[in-house]
Amino acid sequence: MDIEQIKRLRELTGVGITDAKKALTEAEGDFDEALKQMRKKGLTKAEKRGEREARAGIIGTYNHDSRIGVVVEVNCETDFVARNEIFTDLVKDISMHIAASAPLYVSIDDVPAEEKNKVEKEFTEKVKTEGKPENMVPQIVEGMVKKYFAEKCLLEQPFIKNPDQKVEILIKENIAKLGENIVVKRFSRLALGEVE
Amino acid sequence: MDIEQIKRLRELTGVGITDAKKALTEAEGDFDEALKQMRKKGLTKAEKRGEREARAGIIGTYNHDSRIGVVVEVNCETDFVARNEIFTDLVKDISMHIAASAPLYVSIDDVPAEEKNKVEKEFTEKVKTEGKPENMVPQIVEGMVKKYFAEKCLLEQPFIKNPDQKVEILIKENIAKLGENIVVKRFSRLALGEVE
Repeated sequence: MDIEQIKRLRELTGVGITDAKKALTEAEGDFDEALKQMRKKGLTKAEKRGEREARAGIIGTYNHDSRIGVVVEVNCETDFVARNEIFTDLVKDISMHIAASAPLYVSIDDVPAEEKNKVEKEFTEKVKTEGKPENMVPQIVEGMVKKYFAEKCLLEQPFIKNPDQKVEILIKENIAKLGENIVVKRFSRLALGEVE
Repeated sequence: MDIEQIKRLRELTGVGITDAKKALTEAEGDFDEALKQMRKKGLTKAEKRGEREARAGIIGTYNHDSRIGVVVEVNCETDFVARNEIFTDLVKDISMHIAASAPLYVSIDDVPAEEKNKVEKEFTEKVKTEGKPENMVPQIVEGMVKKYFAEKCLLEQPFIKNPDQKVEILIKENIAKLGENIVVKRFSRLALGEVE
């Protein structure tokens, strides 16, 4: 069993070493599967924390060369954590990531239904033109739509400072470290001369 | 004739000393009237510049105590002016003003028609309840609506560092100083814990 995997699983979920080992053993060493199973069972402390209300926090800003500007609200549960350097560094990283990766939404849930329908329609037409079997079209389109919006959603994007990690996982790690729920509530990114 | 008035009229309009004096004389020393008449005649260089395209500029950000964050795009015509300290100071002032005064729109033209209609309806009902003469209602409501949105529009707000001056006039002064059109294109202001 990989000690790094155990460490990482603990960071992501906030569980003890015994639970992390057990999950990995059950998943036959498959890290993603172990994480998935723990989530299914609701074992992950970080995700339980994810249901708690986050009302404190800070507003972060980032300015890249006066050409890109970002303002972001990141919430936690207490002012104590809001002042913690781990939290303020996380907000800096998220602001910088938004400047670089230009997401449009925080999560897929934030995509307006109208926009989702429009894209779905476009992909459906495209897939049908390609002559895919009729009964497979919905499934193919669903996958395409998900991928399309994942690229535009902050939480789904690969973190700019560590592209192996999604931003969502970066945040979960910090939830585990700080012991409080952390939520990116909203952000705004302006780039010079961009068409609105 | 007040030398300060002449100076200020020149700053605001970009005209020469002779034209400024002439306008003030014709207005019998009434500064606002002089400015109004010059605008009517299209004499103000600053306003002619206001019609030119502004595509360069900078993105400004401002962060107040990690509790309020602002990002703003201010355009001018050339990179040369965008790097000028007068311009960068103006953008700083505008960002700080937005943080403090919380406008919702750049100008009254940016208020969505739907929002304008809603407010108009509310004021109309209010004025009718107060028993004002029927034929006077539209005029009263128009004034109320204008005042209501003026308070929410950046360009109409009294500049935080000099409340005798509207932000619009601050910008016009800088247009005259820098010889280029300057446009606040858009901004975003987030305050911690604010309901969206």
